[in-house]
Amino acid sequence: MERFSSLTPVFIAIICVLIGIILKSNRKSSKKGKSETKNKSESRPWVDDDLRDSTDLHVEEEDADGDWQGLDENIAHVSFSAERYSEDEMIKRSKEFYELLNKRRSVRFISNEPVPREVINNVIKAAGTSPSGAHTEPWTFVVVQDPEVKHRIREIIEEEEEINYKKRMGDRWVNDLKRLRTNWIKVYLDTAPYLILIFKQVYGMLPNGQKKTHYYNEISVSIACGLLLAALQVR
Amino acid sequence: MERFSSLTPVFIAIICVLIGIILKSNRKSSKKGKSETKNKSESRPWVDDDLRDSTDLHVEEEDADGDWQGLDENIAHVSFSAERYSEDEMIKRSKEFYELLNKRRSVRFISNEPVPREVINNVIKAAGTSPSGAHTEPWTFVVVQDPEVKHRIREIIEEEEEINYKKRMGDRWVNDLKRLRTNWIKVYLDTAPYLILIFKQVYGMLPNGQKKTHYYNEISVSIACGLLLAALQVR
Repeated sequence: MERFSSLTPVFIAIICVLIGIILKSNRKSSKKGKSETKNKSESRPWVDDDLRDSTDLHVEEEDADGDWQGLDENIAHVSFSAERYSEDEMIKRSKEFYELLNKRRSVRFISNEPVPREVINNVIKAAGTSPSGAHTEPWTFVVVQDPEVKHRIREIIEEEEEINYKKRMGDRWVNDLKRLRTNWIKVYLDTAPYLILIFKQVYGMLPNGQKKTHYYNEISVSIACGLLLAALQVR
Repeated sequence: MERFSSLTPVFIAIICVLIGIILKSNRKSSKKGKSETKNKSESRPWVDDDLRDSTDLHVEEEDADGDWQGLDENIAHVSFSAERYSEDEMIKRSKEFYELLNKRRSVRFISNEPVPREVINNVIKAAGTSPSGAHTEPWTFVVVQDPEVKHRIREIIEEEEEINYKKRMGDRWVNDLKRLRTNWIKVYLDTAPYLILIFKQVYGMLPNGQKKTHYYNEISVSIACGLLLAALQVR
């Protein structure tokens, strides 16, 4: 294995973990409610399906203040101006950024070289600037440095991945991955100086203990992952 | 409305459209097959649910070559080294990039100032460097500049959004959005010099006409959207 060494100073394990498994029954009943609503209006599967991601959790409304008044033209807005560049500069900057991102590779062999923790904090802060559905910011980033915890995470992931390859995903998946020559052994989860685990928050908690739905949480967290990858490539 | 002007040179409409609606019946039957497999092995809802995004389309396997041989230690790898910076430089670069991204705002009033098309092409190329499940790259970016097409898109989106606010999403959603003071009127879809429509490809086509599943397509496309946002902020 030593002769196949690829170096990258930081490794990211992107793991989206479903929080709130215990609420499955809730979810089922709310889905029924939703499809009833759908039948009343015209069916629009391309939108409705989009809202129904695997984590869709539609908690029953109780104290929701339903008196939506429609448009309010008198609300105050905050003026905002983005940094401005000349057309030539914009072309140059966008081209250079593309060339930088284009150098990224999804490597499976990682250097154990230390990385300043401050860099990790900065890339996570960059990811946290992501837009999200209704500005719920439904993400949790967990940085793991302890070798034993990293190893335990590796064991969990390898166990799941082995099931993916051997049972869960079907022959087609295994076949599609063949040309990538990946497998379920992930040595790099021990090697990398840090693992960044990324959790999606399916719901939040209101001060009164009620659950608060996080709309589009999977899409939002994935967009934040994109910013994280960009930040890692820039650093 | 004129007095609330926020300027940003480029506007992005992120619209994930479900391709392959007609294949719903396929999907249903495959889901049944999947849950049977699940029961055979131990149930692992946090992983299985993650694979079942709204676009999960598990096409029946026919000619899949099922003889997966497991690990192959003799395969050739390509060496890769990322750009290297000193620790101080890394800290500085990551901090500056965070500060740049942190200036982004999800504005709803957009300047109509022209932007060179080359910049749009470069940010889309940057997004296209995103990692994706089994390297399927399941995204399509469509740039719209024609005022009539932009307006037709605005009409479609406003129609859907009005249903969201009034019927589809429930009181809680409307309530959650209240503090953001958004509504379904999206003037900026006419104003912005370009719209970038982003489609997720639920499946691809093999040369023999068979469908090829795109695993994790929604997550992959959303990560690409994150890179797109980063590239727009950099330009």
